[in-house]
Amino acid sequence: MPTLYVARGACSFAAHLLVHELQLPIAVQVVPLRTPDSPIHAVNPLGRVPAVQFEDGSLLTENSAILPWLADQRPDSTLFAAPGTLERAQIQSWLGYLNSELHVGAFRPLNRPERYSADNSHHAAIRAQALQQLHATLRPIDEALRGRDYLVGARFTLADAYLGVFLHWLGRLPSEAFADLAQLARVREAWLARPSVQAALAAEAAH
Amino acid sequence: MPTLYVARGACSFAAHLLVHELQLPIAVQVVPLRTPDSPIHAVNPLGRVPAVQFEDGSLLTENSAILPWLADQRPDSTLFAAPGTLERAQIQSWLGYLNSELHVGAFRPLNRPERYSADNSHHAAIRAQALQQLHATLRPIDEALRGRDYLVGARFTLADAYLGVFLHWLGRLPSEAFADLAQLARVREAWLARPSVQAALAAEAAH
Ligand SMILES: N[C@@H](CCC(=O)N[C@@H](CS)C(=O)NCC(=O)O)C(=O)O
Ligand SMILES: N[C@@H](CCC(=O)N[C@@H](CS)C(=O)NCC(=O)O)C(=O)O
Repeated sequence: MPTLYVARGACSFAAHLLVHELQLPIAVQVVPLRTPDSPIHAVNPLGRVPAVQFEDGSLLTENSAILPWLADQRPDSTLFAAPGTLERAQIQSWLGYLNSELHVGAFRPLNRPERYSADNSHHAAIRAQALQQLHATLRPIDEALRGRDYLVGARFTLADAYLGVFLHWLGRLPSEAFADLAQLARVREAWLARPSVQAALAAEAAH
Repeated sequence: MPTLYVARGACSFAAHLLVHELQLPIAVQVVPLRTPDSPIHAVNPLGRVPAVQFEDGSLLTENSAILPWLADQRPDSTLFAAPGTLERAQIQSWLGYLNSELHVGAFRPLNRPERYSADNSHHAAIRAQALQQLHATLRPIDEALRGRDYLVGARFTLADAYLGVFLHWLGRLPSEAFADLAQLARVREAWLARPSVQAALAAEAAH
């Protein structure tokens, strides 16, 4: 059985909730991050989650590959779409946008300004700019959700599963900054209410 | 026929070379970037390439979705792999790593420091840090290519097509900074020698 490595509250939460949503035979292991003795370093040399380790030792990393792979283990699932279709590509496109532009482009400089300048006195300005970048990156998502419950088609897909993680992260930030993005608050509540999300939250909290 | 929008020398080059590599019935339109009157703004509200516009008006963006979609138009191509397989997921994983960690995580602060701090006096430090981040992000790629010509399996795939674009970008940077990454120089030469790369370079140069 493959093992999915996650950390509490990290971006790996999307993969974690999918294991519940799809009822997959995959073990979930919760590990600490950014501690030199975390078991993640023996699994992924980059020290990052999510990572899936297979029994033959192969490793799969990157949200934008792990989430599609998980869904493809259940070809009948409606979380993804058939290969070659534009709908599948649109779901993969949202994964790419959330991953590159929202997570690495906006949340990372906000949370890890030291990766953007070695001078501590720059970090407040980097975080302020990242907050603006975060808002600018969320706005097209809010617009895409006007009058809709889901990013692609008329059902919950991988794109919505992954989006919810970042909407959840917004809860740690000053809420006034995002008050104009009304669709996001609505979609976040619906995401939080899913049994798979609740089950994965409970499993991570137990660690 | 769908139209692929690209800009000269941009990250859209991977999609452009695939149109040649796969001989796809897709029109390629070269547009300027970062000019308010560029035709890209009428196509993609974010003003970015690559973008594929379909005859019914649908739009597909994001490299990590466009490249797989292009390959899936030729299910017999060896550039990608069958859905559900770990090999397909590994190719998608490299696309995700190159897209999020290499392009947005390292090249973007190097090329667009103004997106990371509004204070011009911070930009030199941001670029210096980004150069280090770029090296750190390239190192695992160099290691993965030791004794190998390709990132996944024993053939050129989407992952190699996309990697080449960033190796080509390295040519604009001080070469001493990357001299220790010997595999990357070798793989870059092989990529440049591909007829599809040469054809796409010539098409962009004609604009
Ligand atoms: N591009 C990667 C990013 C993964 C990532 O940044 N994971 C974070 C948790 S949200 C992590 O493991 N951070 C620890 C570190 O970078 O040291 C992906 O999307 O899978
Ligand atoms: N995450 C996007 C990034 C696309 C991107 O940044 N494209 C650049 C060219 S390399 C661009 O269009 N820049 C113009 C701009 O951002 O204004 C993708 O990978 O498709």
